[in-house]
Amino acid sequence: MSHFSPKTKVGYLGGGQLAKMLSESAHQLGLEPHVLSLRADSPAAQNTKYWHQGSLESHADLETFLKSVDVATFESEFLNADKLVQAQKATKTKIFPTPELMGQLQDRKTQKQLFDQSRLPSSPWAAVDSEPEIAEFVNLHKLPVVFKQRTFGYDGYGTFIVKDKKQLKSFIEKDFKANAFIVEKFISFKKECAVIIARSLDGSFTHLPFVESFQKDARCDWVKGPLRIKTDGPMLKQLKSFLQKTKYVGVMGVEFFQTSKGLLINEIAPRVHNTGHYSQNTPGYSQFDLHNMCLLGMKLPKEIKIKGGFAMVNLIGGDKPIKLKAVPGLHWYGKTENRPGRKMGHINKVASTPEKALEAAKKKRKGFQL
Amino acid sequence: MSHFSPKTKVGYLGGGQLAKMLSESAHQLGLEPHVLSLRADSPAAQNTKYWHQGSLESHADLETFLKSVDVATFESEFLNADKLVQAQKATKTKIFPTPELMGQLQDRKTQKQLFDQSRLPSSPWAAVDSEPEIAEFVNLHKLPVVFKQRTFGYDGYGTFIVKDKKQLKSFIEKDFKANAFIVEKFISFKKECAVIIARSLDGSFTHLPFVESFQKDARCDWVKGPLRIKTDGPMLKQLKSFLQKTKYVGVMGVEFFQTSKGLLINEIAPRVHNTGHYSQNTPGYSQFDLHNMCLLGMKLPKEIKIKGGFAMVNLIGGDKPIKLKAVPGLHWYGKTENRPGRKMGHINKVASTPEKALEAAKKKRKGFQL
Repeated sequence: MSHFSPKTKVGYLGGGQLAKMLSESAHQLGLEPHVLSLRADSPAAQNTKYWHQGSLESHADLETFLKSVDVATFESEFLNADKLVQAQKATKTKIFPTPELMGQLQDRKTQKQLFDQSRLPSSPWAAVDSEPEIAEFVNLHKLPVVFKQRTFGYDGYGTFIVKDKKQLKSFIEKDFKANAFIVEKFISFKKECAVIIARSLDGSFTHLPFVESFQKDARCDWVKGPLRIKTDGPMLKQLKSFLQKTKYVGVMGVEFFQTSKGLLINEIAPRVHNTGHYSQNTPGYSQFDLHNMCLLGMKLPKEIKIKGGFAMVNLIGGDKPIKLKAVPGLHWYGKTENRPGRKMGHINKVASTPEKALEAAKKKRKGFQL
Repeated sequence: MSHFSPKTKVGYLGGGQLAKMLSESAHQLGLEPHVLSLRADSPAAQNTKYWHQGSLESHADLETFLKSVDVATFESEFLNADKLVQAQKATKTKIFPTPELMGQLQDRKTQKQLFDQSRLPSSPWAAVDSEPEIAEFVNLHKLPVVFKQRTFGYDGYGTFIVKDKKQLKSFIEKDFKANAFIVEKFISFKKECAVIIARSLDGSFTHLPFVESFQKDARCDWVKGPLRIKTDGPMLKQLKSFLQKTKYVGVMGVEFFQTSKGLLINEIAPRVHNTGHYSQNTPGYSQFDLHNMCLLGMKLPKEIKIKGGFAMVNLIGGDKPIKLKAVPGLHWYGKTENRPGRKMGHINKVASTPEKALEAAKKKRKGFQL
């Protein structure tokens, strides 16, 4: 397909680091990246001429923005799905992945239902709206269990691991609300791992390698890969058929628990994902390239293999003034304010093995003193 | 050094692909890239929020721009040096490399004089302002010779290879003007090669590996590397001392003829250079990172080694409408008009050897049908 002269205008709903990195990719692919965000100092407002100030909550702003682009996507699954559906209808500009699917996935209850319908393996769960329902689940699956806020939970916010009866009592008294939580069996895992999968508008499917991911304080701390997994073939087949069935368009981040009984899906994100950032510095397409290609219906390669090793470490904000320095593979998000726990940037590194890449990336991180 | 909160504002004089790629690097390093160019559709006007419309020839525009940034640099050595010197004095914002040195290097006569003063090996030459002076040079060095326009020559424009007496007569009649040309002995070379060197404001020096470069129709067609050269050590030592002596700040592209008698410098460019674009996709700093680091006085690593092989192929414009496609390692410049001979983008590739990388990059280029 031709997307040159005039350039295809791709719209990103949101101004964070994911939209920023999607814009970077768009520039290199010869597309014209447009960004809708409220704040002029948001990361993605910095690296394109085509920044549109506006609210993702305003129907008028959404409609004006969609009218000015050829196709649109989002960087967060926590947008108001109904408003996106309305704005899409009013403008005929397509949003991928569809806002309808985004709506299903942003609620952990409907996400889990979708897993079950599609026979995607995940932890046993229940929507719990009352104390008797909690008691029933705990009785069946035993403690520990994990309560997860149905919506707007990310990076550990809204997740409560309950280990014993005392913690359970405290959770019910302090945090529990009806219609707000699901409960899951606590999964004892060997490793957490993840994979980036993608389906293009033309129907083609691809994936990046599996990676190991490590969480610290419930936030992604590092990723290394490629990770060899015995059952990756059947899992990828299931995921591919899931994307086909849902007519999904775009990149999807899939996070797993690696258990003694095989892979269990922890959660999926209908967007580019922190566990795929390493692909900016490995040979081949990055997840950002892939997402843009999907939106335009470009044919995807069958799979993207990466030799040797690679790693990514996150630069998480702290309470000191940041002394920024240049290191190879640095991707700084351009946030104006350093805050504890905030993702400020990341460092990518390639090496002969995953372990060496991770070691080198961690060493580079030390200089930042965040 | 701290360059965060407020972000250091780096100014790029010019809106072409080199300024675009410098801006990309600046974003990733956490800097704020500002661009001064006349046209809103110039490549570097696309990927920053901080585009300033103005003329590089206007003192008022230069002064306003320099006042709005912390430090500035240029992407072409063919700017009006006097105007830059004046604007710099009026604003106290430093421009690196210095406009004075840029002025010396933009004229092939003063560039050659600088080589001779610094004992940098280059082809025998003379400034020729009359027919007798031409006759004297030809008598001494024999045909073929090369006439080069003193200023504004690039990508083969302004270069005349004169092989025999008939061509000489024709050149003198049609193209020759006094005070406009130098003449050089025609160098019979085995290969053309190049190296990116850099000196930071803090005095530290670094270099990327030597590469082989191949010209087609007097334009860089491809680059591959690393290239092993026996005498690279002494040459780098000479270049380092040249940069120290001239108090040079920034990246410099150095092009050589590899002859049976060793390396001869063909020309140098006081800026990031086409033969260094590959470094965007190799591990370690890119030439664009290095240039930005130099401007801020960041310490450079002693040298940047690259294992395995890498290559870059240019995407040169033609007369057909471009069907753009996505390939890994694509860097598209976002020019709105496709013209024969115009540099539209490039493709970078890494592989186990330089040859394999080049072969793969050329294969990817075929799909573009420019």
